[in-house]
Amino acid sequence: MLETVDLSLKLSKEDYKQWLPRLKEDLRILQQQAREAGLPVIILFEGWDASGKGDSISQLLDRLDPRGFRVHPISAPIQEELYRPFLWRFWTKVPGRGQIAIFDRSWYGRVHVERVDKICTPDEWHQAYQEINEFERQLVDDGTVIVKFWLHISQKEQKRRFRQCEKDRYMKWKVTKEDWKHHKQYDTYLQVTEEMLERTSTHYAPWTIIEATDRRYRRVKIFKTICEAIQAGLNRKRTKAATHEDTHEQIEVTALKDMPSVLDRVDLSLTLEPDEYRRQLLRGQVRLRELEYECFKHRMPVIAVYEGWDAAGKGGNIKRVTQNLDPRGYSVTPIAAPTGDEKTHHYLWRFWKQLPKAGHIAVFDRSWYGRIMVERIEGFCTEAEWRRAFQEINEFERHLYHFGTVIVKFWLHISKEEQLARFEERKTIEYKSYKLTDEDWRNREKWDAYREAVVDMLQRTSTTYAPWTVVEGNCKLWARVKAVETIIDAIEKGLNREDRPEMTG
Amino acid sequence: MLETVDLSLKLSKEDYKQWLPRLKEDLRILQQQAREAGLPVIILFEGWDASGKGDSISQLLDRLDPRGFRVHPISAPIQEELYRPFLWRFWTKVPGRGQIAIFDRSWYGRVHVERVDKICTPDEWHQAYQEINEFERQLVDDGTVIVKFWLHISQKEQKRRFRQCEKDRYMKWKVTKEDWKHHKQYDTYLQVTEEMLERTSTHYAPWTIIEATDRRYRRVKIFKTICEAIQAGLNRKRTKAATHEDTHEQIEVTALKDMPSVLDRVDLSLTLEPDEYRRQLLRGQVRLRELEYECFKHRMPVIAVYEGWDAAGKGGNIKRVTQNLDPRGYSVTPIAAPTGDEKTHHYLWRFWKQLPKAGHIAVFDRSWYGRIMVERIEGFCTEAEWRRAFQEINEFERHLYHFGTVIVKFWLHISKEEQLARFEERKTIEYKSYKLTDEDWRNREKWDAYREAVVDMLQRTSTTYAPWTVVEGNCKLWARVKAVETIIDAIEKGLNREDRPEMTG
Repeated sequence: MLETVDLSLKLSKEDYKQWLPRLKEDLRILQQQAREAGLPVIILFEGWDASGKGDSISQLLDRLDPRGFRVHPISAPIQEELYRPFLWRFWTKVPGRGQIAIFDRSWYGRVHVERVDKICTPDEWHQAYQEINEFERQLVDDGTVIVKFWLHISQKEQKRRFRQCEKDRYMKWKVTKEDWKHHKQYDTYLQVTEEMLERTSTHYAPWTIIEATDRRYRRVKIFKTICEAIQAGLNRKRTKAATHEDTHEQIEVTALKDMPSVLDRVDLSLTLEPDEYRRQLLRGQVRLRELEYECFKHRMPVIAVYEGWDAAGKGGNIKRVTQNLDPRGYSVTPIAAPTGDEKTHHYLWRFWKQLPKAGHIAVFDRSWYGRIMVERIEGFCTEAEWRRAFQEINEFERHLYHFGTVIVKFWLHISKEEQLARFEERKTIEYKSYKLTDEDWRNREKWDAYREAVVDMLQRTSTTYAPWTVVEGNCKLWARVKAVETIIDAIEKGLNREDRPEMTG
Repeated sequence: MLETVDLSLKLSKEDYKQWLPRLKEDLRILQQQAREAGLPVIILFEGWDASGKGDSISQLLDRLDPRGFRVHPISAPIQEELYRPFLWRFWTKVPGRGQIAIFDRSWYGRVHVERVDKICTPDEWHQAYQEINEFERQLVDDGTVIVKFWLHISQKEQKRRFRQCEKDRYMKWKVTKEDWKHHKQYDTYLQVTEEMLERTSTHYAPWTIIEATDRRYRRVKIFKTICEAIQAGLNRKRTKAATHEDTHEQIEVTALKDMPSVLDRVDLSLTLEPDEYRRQLLRGQVRLRELEYECFKHRMPVIAVYEGWDAAGKGGNIKRVTQNLDPRGYSVTPIAAPTGDEKTHHYLWRFWKQLPKAGHIAVFDRSWYGRIMVERIEGFCTEAEWRRAFQEINEFERHLYHFGTVIVKFWLHISKEEQLARFEERKTIEYKSYKLTDEDWRNREKWDAYREAVVDMLQRTSTTYAPWTVVEGNCKLWARVKAVETIIDAIEKGLNREDRPEMTG
């Protein structure tokens, strides 16, 4: 889930000054409503040393009513705690109805620092994963709202912050030998963190990753996330008990128009000259043909998923990928709205049916991601359904991965202006005009809603076993070569994967 | 979950003749309603060879509309299926809305016969557990009703049936060498089955164990279970969409008054003479005192849970267990209705808080089982809540077990007549009269409802790591000695447990 995180995201002073006070006020009101509705809330902070957990919590407390929350700083367990099951010290701290519990570090220490520092056995942290998911599910089923933050900074940024701290005579005690030791283990921790986020990001208690390089961006995103989560919790409670005495108006959490996101940082100026394009494409296609045979020989299935804006160039891109392949070894499946039997089954059913045989390559032109894109935005499924889908899709792809499947997922990105230009072109060039429909224009009007859905999708369904690749699509030539090369890399990695189940015959 | 199964259960011809046709008619109507409501239903049969899966399915089809169901016999996967992830062949067979899919064997082969016969790798069946639970959860979240049967017979009964088959010239082809091989591996399979039932009995897709020795009993219990499950599914759908066009009357599934259960087979005539009682009790108490010290030395926590009918003798029993113990090493916690802070937290919270320190013994006089007993029957929690609680409690106890805790659970059983006699005695003997309240008389009126809840509890929360012991309680002396000896056995087993996490200091 960290692959697609853009640590360079920041917020302007103006936006910050405008937004933060409003969000603080929203939170104050929401706390009141949560108290009166008897909604328990857990907010937990995990993240790198010096990533700003302490500052985030101070900011949070600023406007909260102190009778309604409790901060729990978590460090190594004391003897009394070691004498009980590891969740004991957290179970005893869960908030009562209407209370907010804020955890500065949490039960995740068990599968993180305690794992790396070998304070618990592999058996123990393996079991802890299951126990943590069960613990959180039990609380959420009981009505608790759980908000989990991972504050992310780069190793370089961490070093900078440590150094800066050390220069300050009042702050330097904060940087310990232990901190530097962990700093040197950044890569190990990164891997362990990835696993933790993947295995415990559930639909009932998802992680939110905070790009924490920029203080303003960090604070605002944290407040926004908490406000929205509490509001969603209140709504669930209100729907359940229509007769509830809580008569408060639903407040509108401050909308942050054009909050920067990973999509803004895509470098759409990347291009490739036609000569260079032809040379690189051909080289890639030849290699892909060789790899197609390797896949067949090793009975390794490959899935390439194409998602992207209308007119982003999916069709042409897929054509270049498959152009040189042996047609007996691959298939392209275009996905439109479900029809007939597809409509009477689970939304994943039709994709299960279309899975490639071991050794074959399947390209999907649009895919199961429709659930959290078009179905979400057009209201073809309920909010509960699309929220659940993030987890369902991650599970689905994990099932494929366990079988040995290589999964490549492309988001073909273009600018809104580029889309308009392509629409206009389609209108005028006759042989392309069939591609442009009224629906395309309607979708275009919902650009902002789609944009939000894409950002969610990229973060929440990018996994180590099925990562997203954002393809800079304004230059089609660039996009095609990038796609071909991404697939090549993924297949090579798949062939070398150590735990890939071997199958022949 | 198989510890408390009573394979001697049977049904009289009269009851059978009265009930089965009615249940078949119920099912016919429910099928119609499910079709019109668009409810997908999965019914799957697993169980020992010759336990009656085939006959059960034939019976089922008898009155069903053939346009609405499909039977899927599952055997070893063919090449096409091996070329896909293992769930592929099941995903492609899931029923559409309004359809019924009946599986004769199923995806559970992966964690059962394929595991024992080493057809898949340990990695594969380990992962399969997770994938199966996710698969079923995804379907249930989408509205599917899943009914899972394990048809249980003893090894001896299986042998008898094989032999009988072999004597019949038209049937003998059915008993293969493979069958006899599996028969000899009965104990291995029993263990694997236990694990399978425990790890995949979820609140959304629980297993139902069918005592399959008696054909009549088997058939009736299967029909009753399916009818109730479909009805519950229809109710959920109706509640969700109050505006649903389905206008059918809710049918009353035929009530089976006094359907035999494991509680009827408890031998309440067991008694102990006072002399023998004193001798055995003292011996047990001395041993328990030694073991108390062993527990302390090894820092192994012990939990003993007492549940039972009012006036079953819990208090006196607990007294005899603890009489000779060092008071610094044990505690007795009586559980009444939650008060104050307990009421504003998750129902398990107060039990987490009361967990014994490693090395100590905690006796609970009533417990978390209140959730699925008094709270269920008195409506102190919703149906969704107590149905969920079976899984939550199993998880809770598994968390304790992982920590090394020994868990002993007693159901103190007495007859309804014996209870009356004890109530009357309490009324007349002054120093006992405080024990008898109006509530006791009210509970007594709900004997049948409690009986059903107890049977559910015994089956669904008896696990290998926290099994129930039913104590024959009409003779208090017998009950006390049995409790003491059960605790002794459990502690000794715990001390010898191979994977118990060692903790000292």
